[in-house]
Amino acid sequence: MKTTRRNFIALSGIAAAGLSTGKTVFAGKALSQNLSSGKIKLSFEPYNLALKHVFTIADSSRTSTPVMLTRIEYGGITGYGEASMPPYLGESQETASRFLSKVDLSRFLDPFQIEDILDYIDQIDEGNRAAKASVDIALHDLVGKLIGQPWYRLWGLNSILTPNTSFTIGIDTAEVVKQKVNEAAGFKILKVKLGRENDREMVQTIRSVTNVPLAVDVNQGWKDKEKALEMIYWLKEMGIVMVEQPMPKEQVDNMAWLTARSPLPIFGDEAVQRLPDVIKAAGVYHGINIKLMKCTGMREAFTMAKTAKSLGMKVMIGCMTETSCAVSAAAQLSPLAEFADLDGNLLISNDLYTGMQIKDGKITLSDLPGIGIRKI
Amino acid sequence: MKTTRRNFIALSGIAAAGLSTGKTVFAGKALSQNLSSGKIKLSFEPYNLALKHVFTIADSSRTSTPVMLTRIEYGGITGYGEASMPPYLGESQETASRFLSKVDLSRFLDPFQIEDILDYIDQIDEGNRAAKASVDIALHDLVGKLIGQPWYRLWGLNSILTPNTSFTIGIDTAEVVKQKVNEAAGFKILKVKLGRENDREMVQTIRSVTNVPLAVDVNQGWKDKEKALEMIYWLKEMGIVMVEQPMPKEQVDNMAWLTARSPLPIFGDEAVQRLPDVIKAAGVYHGINIKLMKCTGMREAFTMAKTAKSLGMKVMIGCMTETSCAVSAAAQLSPLAEFADLDGNLLISNDLYTGMQIKDGKITLSDLPGIGIRKI
Repeated sequence: MKTTRRNFIALSGIAAAGLSTGKTVFAGKALSQNLSSGKIKLSFEPYNLALKHVFTIADSSRTSTPVMLTRIEYGGITGYGEASMPPYLGESQETASRFLSKVDLSRFLDPFQIEDILDYIDQIDEGNRAAKASVDIALHDLVGKLIGQPWYRLWGLNSILTPNTSFTIGIDTAEVVKQKVNEAAGFKILKVKLGRENDREMVQTIRSVTNVPLAVDVNQGWKDKEKALEMIYWLKEMGIVMVEQPMPKEQVDNMAWLTARSPLPIFGDEAVQRLPDVIKAAGVYHGINIKLMKCTGMREAFTMAKTAKSLGMKVMIGCMTETSCAVSAAAQLSPLAEFADLDGNLLISNDLYTGMQIKDGKITLSDLPGIGIRKI
Repeated sequence: MKTTRRNFIALSGIAAAGLSTGKTVFAGKALSQNLSSGKIKLSFEPYNLALKHVFTIADSSRTSTPVMLTRIEYGGITGYGEASMPPYLGESQETASRFLSKVDLSRFLDPFQIEDILDYIDQIDEGNRAAKASVDIALHDLVGKLIGQPWYRLWGLNSILTPNTSFTIGIDTAEVVKQKVNEAAGFKILKVKLGRENDREMVQTIRSVTNVPLAVDVNQGWKDKEKALEMIYWLKEMGIVMVEQPMPKEQVDNMAWLTARSPLPIFGDEAVQRLPDVIKAAGVYHGINIKLMKCTGMREAFTMAKTAKSLGMKVMIGCMTETSCAVSAAAQLSPLAEFADLDGNLLISNDLYTGMQIKDGKITLSDLPGIGIRKI
């Protein structure tokens, strides 16, 4: 009944022929000037993010994050993308380079065919979710620029409804933690990584210097549901407003038990990678943490957010340590989110772009088209 | 953490101030010319569709369909919408008029804020799904025109991947059925309404004049699962390719039993109205029939299609008897669908628009922006 994917490539030629005869109506000046240009070209280069502070989570520490920067060019317009690859997630500049080398965008003639292009990207290989996101983001940036609109507007979202972003305070000595909290005075919500022996001490240290709302990210660090529930009750008393991934993602029944009893909203992070995980998360978590590097990019992230809401779940938008490129791409989605943790660009000393800004603690979207960034 | 809906209206004023100082970058010429124009204005008028043939389904017949035509104007640009209200669905020109009279779009300053506007529309009252769709469609048409792109492109879809549409052959005498089938010679798939005593006779009558693939829509007409399965096996032998809503939607367990055993894909129609129903349909049906008049419009329809696919379900796009307005709006989504039943405009003799065309049986999208229609 339907044109199959198999003969799509051949048929695309017909569509392109239709375009070049001027059958399509375009308002965007940039677009109409560039229709004759033909090829969609992907390029990429590795880059290393220098972290301002040593970054510690439940089971590792590091001082830099490897990323891959991508560009998709079409008719003189360039879309920017990025893959951020913290080592514990299994991707690297080598795997990303290998994956991106297999991508041939010249087989597509119209960058607007995002569904076809990203379906093709997704089936090149398993995994490689950050590498896939780097293509997705660059493509969205390109198409938004061709249209002349930022994605939050194309998605019908109201930029006034962006949430405050949390700023993450890494695990460290009491003195350093206090210093970091003081440096983060502009934020309306802080996030602290728990899941070690000194959880209560960390929270008390922060509470000794600020009363700002706190989010906690346990990164699967608690192994006992009864103790976890007891801790969450204590955290509520301490002014914590949400808990992220308290227990191992494999402990589905224990997580559902905990969520059913928790006085604070619980968000799945490691448990929720891609769209099918959203449906599995219903009844197990109150909400989901969507990250572009987990879910292959903006296209899937948007559907995940809408699906989560239809299931009565809350949405959080997170990030890795990233430049303002990937962070600004995620920020486009943030008016759909109750919580955001989009501080990844603030943790690095060698950003390459300006884009989404934090003003008075709140995510403030740029009015630039696409993902809303400009190269520094 | 987040700006609440409650104080959104007040804050919208700030956003609008931002717009009028030229902070937002627009490529669309129409848009930049019309930013100063301010008010978003909804208007509506009743219209009666004249059916070419008496239309019979499992439990009723009729010769006309009442619709409500809507228009949303903003800065000299007009978006068109439509509510189609077959009487058996419970809406009427009176209920639509009452609902639409409560809508005040002047409280919104930016038509791009589709999420806010449609969330507001949805909470005005329960039900009224066709009336809600008439606002959704007009708003999408308006925004697409402001951007200068059709929605299939804004959704990243490839117009080459539209499916063939079925054409519905109503229940009638053998002679009339044969005549209708002969008149429908250009279609690559026909649909027949079953669910009466003469089901086999209907199929045999059609098969006496054509070998074209057939879809059957039972409209909940079969009450016994064993007999239904037996009939589906027979239908497969007769060249039927899919079955729509064979049993009552309330018989969830029987439907799941039938789906698990059926040699043909089974689609839920009456059982699947809005987004939450998609998730309930997983495991009960192989696919879902999305209709704008059931699901409140294009915004929800798109998310339903994406969610269904993520659940491994097939997607079908259907319609009521409608003008080319609502049919063309639905057609924008059709590249995501395995089956389409978008013949509603072909069944009437007093269409008001040109838009989506059927060429050689295949849905062919117009290149016009928005929902792709022009007034006749």
